[in-house]
Amino acid sequence: MPTLPLISPIADAALAQRLQHRIDQQTKPRGALGRLEALALQIGLIQRSDAPALHAPQLVVFAADHGLAAHGVSAYPSDVTWQMVENFLAGGAAVSVLARQHGLALTVVDAGVRHDFAPRAGLLNRKVGAGTASALDGPAMTPAQCAQAIAAGREVASALPGNVLLLGEMGIGNTSSAALLLARLAGCEIDACVGRGTGLDDAGFARKRAVLREVLVRHASATHPLDALAAFGGFEIAMMAGAALQAASERRLVVVDGFISGAAILVAARLVPTLLDYCVFAHRSDEAGHALMLSQLNATPLLDLGLRLGEGSGAALAWPLIASAVRLLAEMASFESAGVSDRAPSDRGEM
Amino acid sequence: MPTLPLISPIADAALAQRLQHRIDQQTKPRGALGRLEALALQIGLIQRSDAPALHAPQLVVFAADHGLAAHGVSAYPSDVTWQMVENFLAGGAAVSVLARQHGLALTVVDAGVRHDFAPRAGLLNRKVGAGTASALDGPAMTPAQCAQAIAAGREVASALPGNVLLLGEMGIGNTSSAALLLARLAGCEIDACVGRGTGLDDAGFARKRAVLREVLVRHASATHPLDALAAFGGFEIAMMAGAALQAASERRLVVVDGFISGAAILVAARLVPTLLDYCVFAHRSDEAGHALMLSQLNATPLLDLGLRLGEGSGAALAWPLIASAVRLLAEMASFESAGVSDRAPSDRGEM
Repeated sequence: MPTLPLISPIADAALAQRLQHRIDQQTKPRGALGRLEALALQIGLIQRSDAPALHAPQLVVFAADHGLAAHGVSAYPSDVTWQMVENFLAGGAAVSVLARQHGLALTVVDAGVRHDFAPRAGLLNRKVGAGTASALDGPAMTPAQCAQAIAAGREVASALPGNVLLLGEMGIGNTSSAALLLARLAGCEIDACVGRGTGLDDAGFARKRAVLREVLVRHASATHPLDALAAFGGFEIAMMAGAALQAASERRLVVVDGFISGAAILVAARLVPTLLDYCVFAHRSDEAGHALMLSQLNATPLLDLGLRLGEGSGAALAWPLIASAVRLLAEMASFESAGVSDRAPSDRGEM
Repeated sequence: MPTLPLISPIADAALAQRLQHRIDQQTKPRGALGRLEALALQIGLIQRSDAPALHAPQLVVFAADHGLAAHGVSAYPSDVTWQMVENFLAGGAAVSVLARQHGLALTVVDAGVRHDFAPRAGLLNRKVGAGTASALDGPAMTPAQCAQAIAAGREVASALPGNVLLLGEMGIGNTSSAALLLARLAGCEIDACVGRGTGLDDAGFARKRAVLREVLVRHASATHPLDALAAFGGFEIAMMAGAALQAASERRLVVVDGFISGAAILVAARLVPTLLDYCVFAHRSDEAGHALMLSQLNATPLLDLGLRLGEGSGAALAWPLIASAVRLLAEMASFESAGVSDRAPSDRGEM
């Protein structure tokens, strides 16, 4: 069994009241900044501060291969995993472009890619294995591998600077693992959880659904979140779960990307539910099953742009909104300081 | 009658095909960047370029007062209009913070505020009058004032550098003008168009609805977009309409903020429908009526964050997404250049 960190709930009624008062004194109608006000409040509570600030945000892309990919569950061959890792490092992937745009430090973690990478800056070797085993034959990982991946994720997060972790991933076949985890942990029909991933055609989609149904039957007894995680994989999902738990235990903000990183949070929050206090969900992806997953997590994402790319691209796109929420709290004038007339008290429901 | 510019449609089948081909060759599954791909294509067509680029984005806040405000249609007094203009210029308003965050040049235009401002950098005096007249007594503006405001908006847009105009506004009472314009031009019941603005309580909201119903009856014959604009105001809405038309005629991208700037676009697009080719709608606001307005405009906004502030705050918040769309098109590697395996042709529906 992996060792899991303690995560304190963020609730603090006195601080929440001070933050809300400050927000309400700013030169705007009450509540007029909508979700951004709730975000500022959440981040203040996470940082236990009246004046939260975000620094050195870390976008970490966890990459690994999947045994199930050999069974035709993806439109792309497994080699694309390592090729895309090279693309991340060379700066040509979507997440590379977005990280540059927003000044996000980008780290790629080899959680278990079936390829030997030359060591270089920006790449961490935390390989648990050369891809998971096929979940059709047995568990995708052994319990020891699962614990190792979670521990590696914790260590990676802990070693990073800053107070924000943005989660991304790459792994051909990993929408299958995410769909399986959702189906098992949420108790939903697999057909409601599975989508076309990177873009399967109808025949491929039917094949994927058939394979996943078979996997669920094969691992009918894997109901504990850790057993399900080991049964369905993958290394990158386990490592993201560990990284998120560690980051939250250190009171960092955790920005969750899409369907795959959401599956990692689903597992991790079943282990330590207070994790969710520290999470912001970046977007609702176009992958079927993601809306269901978000509702399981009681999560309202910031963006809804029909993305289905992964890599942390949605997290990177949501980043400026999160930064705005904190900046607005820090920099906006109050009615008093700006000499702006507030509405009459009777109109504020403060009779 | 104001002189209106010609606006060419952006359609160009050959260029659209080249842009789409380039997008599809980038290292991501086809369509995986969702709305951002459509945005990149639109901006390429606007700029008539395979390699569009955004430069010197201009956020312009048009401010004016409204005669109707004396009839209790807002939770705030009219003085807040000029006080907020001072706040924009001093850097303490939400839009000031967001413009700083994103490097947007911020200009405030006095379109008709009931206050004399000391001249200074960042403020343009294009005052048409000291607030509009009350639409309960007659038209909010004369036809000459309406034409003057549209012409001033055109001149303001034309004098600005860059190839992007982001529209913002400030004017206590201007959700009333926007609701009236929507009701008249869309032919909808006023109750479906009117909201609580900056936050009216129930009694204030009932009063606002009653006033607006009376105004609609008073100006039953104002059905042409220009007659409706003159009847209902305001100076800032007319000036935004002119600015948007001019910007589009110069093939600039127009980023529309929320309910009030949307009303300006609704009027302007009835005058020159091709304007909409150049518009991006930043967000769906929390103001009742905005969803209806967006559907009238066939617009799908980028954000949906429960904002109801105006000022151009939603446009500024959407800006990084627009910048991302163009950067991704410019900077992402292709499958070929990055050495990433594309899916098999048969899986692409290209048999």
